[in-house]
Amino acid sequence: MSTSVRPRIGIIGTGAIGGYYGLMLARAGFEVHFLLRSEYEAVARDGLRVRHAQLGELQLSPVNAWRSVQDMPACDWLLVGAKTTSNAELAPLLAQVAAPGAKIVLLQNGLGVEDELRPLLPDSLHLLGGLCFICAHREAPGVVVHQSQGVCNLGYHSGPAGAEERQALLEQGVAWLREAGIESSVIGDLGQARWQKLVWNVPYNGVSVLLGSSTRPLMANPDSRALLEALMQEVVDGALACGYRLPDNYPQKLLAYTDRMPDYLPSMYHDFAQARPAELPAIYAAPLAAAEAAGQSMPRVRMLYQALAFLQASNQ
Amino acid sequence: MSTSVRPRIGIIGTGAIGGYYGLMLARAGFEVHFLLRSEYEAVARDGLRVRHAQLGELQLSPVNAWRSVQDMPACDWLLVGAKTTSNAELAPLLAQVAAPGAKIVLLQNGLGVEDELRPLLPDSLHLLGGLCFICAHREAPGVVVHQSQGVCNLGYHSGPAGAEERQALLEQGVAWLREAGIESSVIGDLGQARWQKLVWNVPYNGVSVLLGSSTRPLMANPDSRALLEALMQEVVDGALACGYRLPDNYPQKLLAYTDRMPDYLPSMYHDFAQARPAELPAIYAAPLAAAEAAGQSMPRVRMLYQALAFLQASNQ
Repeated sequence: MSTSVRPRIGIIGTGAIGGYYGLMLARAGFEVHFLLRSEYEAVARDGLRVRHAQLGELQLSPVNAWRSVQDMPACDWLLVGAKTTSNAELAPLLAQVAAPGAKIVLLQNGLGVEDELRPLLPDSLHLLGGLCFICAHREAPGVVVHQSQGVCNLGYHSGPAGAEERQALLEQGVAWLREAGIESSVIGDLGQARWQKLVWNVPYNGVSVLLGSSTRPLMANPDSRALLEALMQEVVDGALACGYRLPDNYPQKLLAYTDRMPDYLPSMYHDFAQARPAELPAIYAAPLAAAEAAGQSMPRVRMLYQALAFLQASNQ
Repeated sequence: MSTSVRPRIGIIGTGAIGGYYGLMLARAGFEVHFLLRSEYEAVARDGLRVRHAQLGELQLSPVNAWRSVQDMPACDWLLVGAKTTSNAELAPLLAQVAAPGAKIVLLQNGLGVEDELRPLLPDSLHLLGGLCFICAHREAPGVVVHQSQGVCNLGYHSGPAGAEERQALLEQGVAWLREAGIESSVIGDLGQARWQKLVWNVPYNGVSVLLGSSTRPLMANPDSRALLEALMQEVVDGALACGYRLPDNYPQKLLAYTDRMPDYLPSMYHDFAQARPAELPAIYAAPLAAAEAAGQSMPRVRMLYQALAFLQASNQ
C-alpha cells in the first residue's frame, strides 16, 4: 500500500450518501469540502449530522461548506453524491474543482453513468465508480439517518492510468476509506459490479414506488415477493446476455439479504414522494437498452419502467 | 323468432350493470324484479335512476325491490350483475328464485365464472354468459351514470337445452333485449367471447388501479399506452394457446376503440377506491392458470396480478 499524502476530498452533492461518506472521512481527519445548494445555509450554520446506527449521533461542525465550485479549493478526490439526473450539468463543475490528475468517483446507482460523463470530462481526470451498499436517508437539511451498512467499493472506469497504476490507485482509495471506518474493497470489473447492484435496485426502487411500500411488507407478501424475485431474475439474465455472469442463485441471496435489512424505503420512493426527477434513465432505461441490444428482453423490467415513466410524467 | 310470452325477469345484484339493464327492460314493459342489499331502502323509497348519455334522465318508480329472494316471485330469466367474488354464496339464492327451466345470465367479466357456478346450480337451469360492453358506474344508491354504449351479447354455457333449442333460446333473449333498446347479438362461442373481452379488461382494470388513472391519461402517455398494448398482446397470445384465435390486430383495434370512448374509470378502480374485494380471480388468476396450463406464460399479466394482489391485501 502506498503512503501518499492524504488527499483533499470534495463532496459534490451532499445528500444522504455524500453527507454520510463526507462526514465519516472528515471525522477521520481528512480535509473534506462539501458543495451544497438548497441546504447550504443550514449546513454552514448548524453543521452536518449523521444518526449512525452503530456509532450514535455524529456531528461535524464547522463544515467546509461551499455554495459554488468557484470558491472551493481544488480537490484530489471528488465523491459525487448528486443524482445521476444532474450529471450532464455537473461535468463542467467537476472539471473546474478538480486538482490535476484528480479522481472523480461516482457514488451513484445505475448503468452507463460513467460512460455518459466521460466525454464531458478532461482526459487527464480519472473516472471511478463507487458502489455504495448503505441504507440511509436525509431526514432534514444537513441531517442524515444511517440505518445499516455503509460499504463503498471502488472500481476504475477510465482515465490516464495504466493497468498497474489503476490497481495502486484503487488500493490507495480503499485504504483511505477504511481509515475512516468505511468498509471497502477494490472492484475488478466495474461493469459486472454495476449489473450486480442493479439486481437489487431495479426491483426494490420501482416496486416501492408502484406499490407505495417499504421493503418489509413487500417481502412479507408472497405475491410481491415473487414479483421482486422475477424482476431480479430478469436482471440476472440481462447481465448474462451482456457478458456478466453473476453469482449463482443471486436473486435468492439478495432476498435473504433484504430479509435481514431493516425496513427500508429506497431512494426512488423518496424522489417520487417529493416530486423530484427519479433516476429512471440510469436504473431502467440504460440496462433495458443494453440487454435488448444483446438480444435479451426484460418484459417485467420494461413494464416497471413504463409504469414509473407514466407516474413521473403525472407527478410533475 | 318465437313469439313466447314475455318472461318475468329478476336482477340479482343491482349495481351499475344490473341497474342499467333492469331499468331499460322495465321501461320497455317487462316485469322486472330487483334484488338489493345495502341499497334496498333508497331504491324502495326513491326508485332507480339512470343518467343515460343519449336518452337523458331515466326514472323507474316504483320499483319491484326485494331485500330477500324468499319474498321474490319466481323468475324466468335471472340477470346476475353481482360481483364474481360473491358467486359461490349466490348459487343457492339463484336456485331458490329460479322458475322451472329458468335462464341464469352472468353479466360478469372474467374467465371461468360459469364453470365455477355450474356445479352449484340444479341441472334443470340454463346457464348463460351475458357480455356487456358499457361504460357506466354507480354514482349513489339507486343512481347509475351511463357514459356510453350498452351492448349485451348472450352466449349459452350449459344446461338442459340441445343445440337447436340453445340457438332459439339465445335468439329469443336477444330479441327481448332489443325490444328494450339494448343492442345485442348471439355469441357463437362463449369461451372465445370471454377471452376476447379480457383483452380489454385485463389491461385497463389493473393498470387504472396501479397507476391511479382513468383511461384518457393512460392512452395519452406513450409509456402507459405501450404497456397497455403489450398486456393486450399477452392476452391475445394466451387465448390462442387455449385454442381461441381472436380477430387480427385486435390490440390495435381495442386501442382505437378506447381512444373513442369517454374518459373512463374501470370498475376495478372503484373497487379498490372503496376497499371492496376486486375481481382478481376471474380477471387475472383464471386466465393466467388457463394460459399456463396451455404452456403460455403471460409475464406482464402475472406481474400486474401480483401487484394488485399486494395492493388488495394492504387495502383490507
